Amino acid sequence: MNININTDANLAPIGIFDSGVGGLTVAREIMRQLPNESVVYFGDTARVPYGSKSEGTIIRYSKQIARFLLTKHVKAIVIACNTASAFALESLQREFDVPIIGVIKPGAKTAVAETVTKRIGVIGTEGTIHSQIYTKVIHEYDPETVVIGKPCPLFCPLVEEGWLHDTVTDEVARRYLSEFDDKNIDTLILGCTHYPLLRSTIKKIMGDNVYLVNPAYETALRLRELLSANNLTSPSESIADSKQHRFYVSDTPEKFKAFGNSIDLPFYIEKVEQINIEAF
Amino acid sequence: MNININTDANLAPIGIFDSGVGGLTVAREIMRQLPNESVVYFGDTARVPYGSKSEGTIIRYSKQIARFLLTKHVKAIVIACNTASAFALESLQREFDVPIIGVIKPGAKTAVAETVTKRIGVIGTEGTIHSQIYTKVIHEYDPETVVIGKPCPLFCPLVEEGWLHDTVTDEVARRYLSEFDDKNIDTLILGCTHYPLLRSTIKKIMGDNVYLVNPAYETALRLRELLSANNLTSPSESIADSKQHRFYVSDTPEKFKAFGNSIDLPFYIEKVEQINIEAF
Repeated sequence: MNININTDANLAPIGIFDSGVGGLTVAREIMRQLPNESVVYFGDTARVPYGSKSEGTIIRYSKQIARFLLTKHVKAIVIACNTASAFALESLQREFDVPIIGVIKPGAKTAVAETVTKRIGVIGTEGTIHSQIYTKVIHEYDPETVVIGKPCPLFCPLVEEGWLHDTVTDEVARRYLSEFDDKNIDTLILGCTHYPLLRSTIKKIMGDNVYLVNPAYETALRLRELLSANNLTSPSESIADSKQHRFYVSDTPEKFKAFGNSIDLPFYIEKVEQINIEAF
Repeated sequence: MNININTDANLAPIGIFDSGVGGLTVAREIMRQLPNESVVYFGDTARVPYGSKSEGTIIRYSKQIARFLLTKHVKAIVIACNTASAFALESLQREFDVPIIGVIKPGAKTAVAETVTKRIGVIGTEGTIHSQIYTKVIHEYDPETVVIGKPCPLFCPLVEEGWLHDTVTDEVARRYLSEFDDKNIDTLILGCTHYPLLRSTIKKIMGDNVYLVNPAYETALRLRELLSANNLTSPSESIADSKQHRFYVSDTPEKFKAFGNSIDLPFYIEKVEQINIEAF
């Protein structure tokens, strides 16, 4: 039996961070599936993108961000960035006491559970695909599964331009996804936090026989289990309203706010605060 | 009379730097127009993009790079990056003894000289257009000229994807450049180092009545004047061959090399060396 005691720890927020705006799709899933929880989000918009940076740099940045989030008394941290999840998850778990999860393992685990053909496609940034991180994690679950990666470098700028349902985006997606013609995949991981916003376009091209894995969704499910296991779930009477969610960035807030308010979050972002992350 | 004496200084290379690969279009113009000169190029591929970073950060990065280039005994430095030209040119000129030029003033000066309608368009990254740097510099030459800026954030990733002559790029360009319909501009500045690679696409859409200013070309002309004025021109018998040009980056060299060898440089890039720029 899981008894929720209304302690400070239970009422504390979830910390979420990403290299920029993309992780808002993870925040969105967490807000939808854990409506009693409040969120402190940090987007490292001054140092974006992470995909081209070295492991040592990403670990250093991630530790700074974790230290910042802990000043906001978060009870758990979600690394909503594929690169930081790949490079920094274990270092953060060793250094900090709160539960910490990334987006890669939940997505990889679901893909392995769903595939029948044992052939999984992964789309992501060049950094993510080049690192073969999804291949490595999938092979931890099942070494016999074939993983076919395809970088889609135009998807992020198309999403950030707001061209979500657009003939240009359709054509770009058709070209990228033709990589999977005749590859017999039955599961495709949306391995970049921006890509769930292109879900309907990708679905249309891949058809009904390919299962699309949204790591943001799987991560929110995993977070729910993790909070429950640590007896950190927020009590049901404390339904979070928009004022409890807080947003921080390392560069100017305007673009972040405009993007956040364009992606169907469960509320309107009123305030985004710029902080000096290098001070943490 | 300009007497070239074959000194070490005359034979020294030109230092060129950019946040990444885009500045290779400036290197290309310099190699074409100053074929006796050799080049040391640095692309800050680990810290790209510069467009979203603060002025203080860009000045710090640019000083590190200038110090690195001076270890290669460059006789002059070309800032082949719009953001760094905007933020760091004067700081570098104050701190270092070699002649230093950026790409913005040569482009702005030519545009002011060419326009008859006194209405100039500028396309660039969001950072460049948002900063209004071209507007400021153009107004130093002629305060009555109207400057109309339009950010084109998809152009860089399209160029880096290699989709230079492509129906997708045509459609994206048509949408962006429709900003200038009925604006009566007769001059358009290609205000990002990637854009000269889309020149034919942009020309097709803008038509023959709009003069396209390529700041890379104008910067190479200005560099020739500057070397001459400082008696630093390389003697004509020392025609640079490809082995004399050197390329350095702050992240992995592969992608840089592939891009460089796709843009019609006057020679093949054989070797690109990765350095730790933060040590300078």
